[in-house]
Amino acid sequence: MKAKVHVTLKRGVLDPQGKAIGHALQSLGFDGVDDVRQGKFIELDLAETDRAAAQKAVESMCQKLLANTVIEDYRIELAD
Amino acid sequence: MKAKVHVTLKRGVLDPQGKAIGHALQSLGFDGVDDVRQGKFIELDLAETDRAAAQKAVESMCQKLLANTVIEDYRIELAD
Repeated sequence: MKAKVHVTLKRGVLDPQGKAIGHALQSLGFDGVDDVRQGKFIELDLAETDRAAAQKAVESMCQKLLANTVIEDYRIELAD
Repeated sequence: MKAKVHVTLKRGVLDPQGKAIGHALQSLGFDGVDDVRQGKFIELDLAETDRAAAQKAVESMCQKLLANTVIEDYRIELAD
């Protein structure tokens, strides 16, 4: 089973990487870019075939390692 | 208009970050994680309201800045 995890900064948390990308885009002549937020996109190939068990495992992986839950949100998508 | 861009390493390109995450997960006791790939997830708030123009602009942003097209692929999703 494949799991796709999006880890993004919580609203209100300053995103220096996003700001840097925004400025760089502007200096390249891209106007009209109001805001840029950058996060992580993690793809996991799991041996697990049971959907509920996979969801539970990935949830735990996010809590323990993949996301800093103080400042980040995460979203899990499973695909067979 | 909101654009969501996934930037991921091309198949066959070594992913040291993914490998490091995989080893860390294993040391935390998560078995059955066959492969881990990490990429970037970038959200852009655009002033542009025309879909085709937004697609073209973001395509150009990817080519020029957001992705290293030698080793990375990118995928663009637009949302009103």
